[in-house]
Amino acid sequence: MNPPARDAFIAALTKIVGPTHVITDPSMRASYETDWTGRFSGQALAVVRPKNTAQVAAVVSLCGEHGVPLVPQGGNTGLVGGAVPSEGSIVLSTTRLNNVGTVDEVAAQVAVGAGATLAAVQAAVRPRGLDVGVDLASRDSATIGGLIATNAGGERVLRYGSMRRQVVGLEAVLADGTVMKHMTGLTKDNTGYDLVRLFAGSEGTLAIITTVLLQLVPLPAKRTVALIGLADVATAQSVLTGLRLRLPQLTAAELFFDAGLELVREHAGLSAPMPDRHPVYLLVEAADVSDPTDALLFQLEKDVRIRDAVLANDTKGVAALWDYREGHTEAVSALGTPIKLDVAVPAAALPAFIAALPLIIEKVAPEAQMFMWGHLAESNLHVNLVNVNGDADRLTDAVLDIVIRSGGSISAEHGVGRAKAAWLERARSAPELAAMRSIKVALDPRGIFNPGVLFPE
Amino acid sequence: MNPPARDAFIAALTKIVGPTHVITDPSMRASYETDWTGRFSGQALAVVRPKNTAQVAAVVSLCGEHGVPLVPQGGNTGLVGGAVPSEGSIVLSTTRLNNVGTVDEVAAQVAVGAGATLAAVQAAVRPRGLDVGVDLASRDSATIGGLIATNAGGERVLRYGSMRRQVVGLEAVLADGTVMKHMTGLTKDNTGYDLVRLFAGSEGTLAIITTVLLQLVPLPAKRTVALIGLADVATAQSVLTGLRLRLPQLTAAELFFDAGLELVREHAGLSAPMPDRHPVYLLVEAADVSDPTDALLFQLEKDVRIRDAVLANDTKGVAALWDYREGHTEAVSALGTPIKLDVAVPAAALPAFIAALPLIIEKVAPEAQMFMWGHLAESNLHVNLVNVNGDADRLTDAVLDIVIRSGGSISAEHGVGRAKAAWLERARSAPELAAMRSIKVALDPRGIFNPGVLFPE
Repeated sequence: MNPPARDAFIAALTKIVGPTHVITDPSMRASYETDWTGRFSGQALAVVRPKNTAQVAAVVSLCGEHGVPLVPQGGNTGLVGGAVPSEGSIVLSTTRLNNVGTVDEVAAQVAVGAGATLAAVQAAVRPRGLDVGVDLASRDSATIGGLIATNAGGERVLRYGSMRRQVVGLEAVLADGTVMKHMTGLTKDNTGYDLVRLFAGSEGTLAIITTVLLQLVPLPAKRTVALIGLADVATAQSVLTGLRLRLPQLTAAELFFDAGLELVREHAGLSAPMPDRHPVYLLVEAADVSDPTDALLFQLEKDVRIRDAVLANDTKGVAALWDYREGHTEAVSALGTPIKLDVAVPAAALPAFIAALPLIIEKVAPEAQMFMWGHLAESNLHVNLVNVNGDADRLTDAVLDIVIRSGGSISAEHGVGRAKAAWLERARSAPELAAMRSIKVALDPRGIFNPGVLFPE
Repeated sequence: MNPPARDAFIAALTKIVGPTHVITDPSMRASYETDWTGRFSGQALAVVRPKNTAQVAAVVSLCGEHGVPLVPQGGNTGLVGGAVPSEGSIVLSTTRLNNVGTVDEVAAQVAVGAGATLAAVQAAVRPRGLDVGVDLASRDSATIGGLIATNAGGERVLRYGSMRRQVVGLEAVLADGTVMKHMTGLTKDNTGYDLVRLFAGSEGTLAIITTVLLQLVPLPAKRTVALIGLADVATAQSVLTGLRLRLPQLTAAELFFDAGLELVREHAGLSAPMPDRHPVYLLVEAADVSDPTDALLFQLEKDVRIRDAVLANDTKGVAALWDYREGHTEAVSALGTPIKLDVAVPAAALPAFIAALPLIIEKVAPEAQMFMWGHLAESNLHVNLVNVNGDADRLTDAVLDIVIRSGGSISAEHGVGRAKAAWLERARSAPELAAMRSIKVALDPRGIFNPGVLFPE
């Protein structure tokens, strides 16, 4: 865009949202142009911060007319560069679309702006005995729009599913600037294609989500957590299968390993959770209106494969056990900037996959250190590699390659973004990619929504 | 198509599937050309019954070349004419694609051909302690492919969701004859658009489903059912809200009314379930590995709004209580061919909607009789009208009109098919319809898949 055309475009943007909300100054733009890991960045023409759906629609129409790409951004907490501007694009920040509506207690639903943070929604609904089905560590920054656009997962997926399942209504601006509104809140509605769930997980490439109707879940009054020491991953899977069958209150099942636990203990100065060390740890949480402790204890006590277990059902004790799991991210980051790979494999392939990983990494980069943890119910592992020196790309290739050969997913919950766009061609078959591209072209013929995300430019 | 062209086309079809499986004789075609209600029918060029995915792909390619529309048909148990041939089309019957694979007990998944009946899958998985999350009365005929294509619901949606949620993998033939295979079985997979769940519920207009990977649920060992007499619908909703909060084992919550219960009793010769009659009945079922009776009883006993309740937890008693609910369809049909409308409204609007219905019907057709029942958790009602004489269309219009004005869905679970295609324009907004049409054109540019379904011809 030549300078006079750019100036005219900026002037038109300013007319829509007002001068305060079109940010062109480079120092002011910076925090919108780089993701929080610092790995991905790009230079935007401007950052625009609309305050309502009508302004979003006007911005989209304007971008369409001028052929300016548009990158939607929520809390900028993504891990795959999906909200970082492409060259010459504008960043559309949803943070001002942060209204949290009145809670409908009969339907257990609430309408919220795409820019409302998860924490803000939690604060609004928890006093009513309700909760959002998905929770994750970035709750104070991550926005509902971003969580849905990336179909975020987290630790409760085994009970409540990912974000896609929490959405019962959506308002979004389409590429031609029209506003699509489907806010019925009906949990059964078989009238045509499920556009709501198609837009969920489309990473801002099909529509700009502006408002969301969330289905809420009951807020459990009592939580019980057990940390279980086990001999191997296959045993952890089998123990979990039994627990899932017998405990409908089961909410989380997190897997980690001896090396990770020792690292967390050292970094955070935590005492050992149990007298002996074990190769594999499974942390399970049951949550219910009435105390699930007896039910969980009953299942654990009769299982001879469990080497040791500690249990907590008071706030402090529960938090202390979760610290062993949640301390992993920080402890690993303290060793240097890690490569973070978020993968899943079929359950039957998980033990062999986990056994093979160290050998593969050793071969590519003998100096590299691997730590991993994840969500066992979905065989979803966060593979973190530190001390990789110049081997980052080769390590990524080697790990994603065995994921694909195991029939797995190269992105279980973080999305594809720009980081893995080149990998998508190997992860999905040609007919799938062709169908996806057809849908992209059909809904965004000029390609103004988040170019470079999902499909390489 | 002129006779020589038709003969050449039939010959080419025969070459693909063999002479036994191309049915052109009118008397042999008849059962494929009319739906089971007898309300919808059409004349097909031929019925073709491929035995595997390669044959389906070849048939689709052939139809594409000749511009012959193709109507996929499973068990032909639909209620909206979605599997009835359009003029000059062929019916592609999936009944020979009926393979049921080996059950993966670690992942609790099974791969089945689209033509396998729900009953066949249930028979294969139940001995392993597993079950299909969706169950419905047409299980002996309804096929898995048809259930997914229409996103079938049924009585357990409150616990397990509709068919869309049971699918973790899909193989389908696209309109250009390519085979799209996504059979990973991963419950977390954020690599691009969710084509699997887009095809679910698309009623055969985007792709022909050939194989499905189903996520199974634990088969509960114990079932407890309570039939509850209540003063009104709002109270039933409130009682259900409490039960859902406190009983994660809750599986079903069916609503019916005094007039329906009396009709069922008379038709089937059943005794009264409780000493007094009540305006509203709520039938709830809890199912679990261990007996849920005490937990259910505890909740019911303390609720003063419950006028009366009977409870059963033995096989015979459970079936007897369900008979009061499941006897409705047959009892109403005995009065004459009913108009069957399957609608949902937002929970908050349900009591007013139910109160308004008789007045509206009385106004349009004073002679008509209404019976209704449904799934309370989703505010999904099956409105059945008998004695409608010449007022069928006006009654349908009047009921669907108030559904739309209540913010509801004109098809909660049966789909749109041909029956409600003309209504879709009023049920979904212009931008939604435009987006749906774009997707249809993108994936099926020649319009060979199920023309007339969803979008009026």
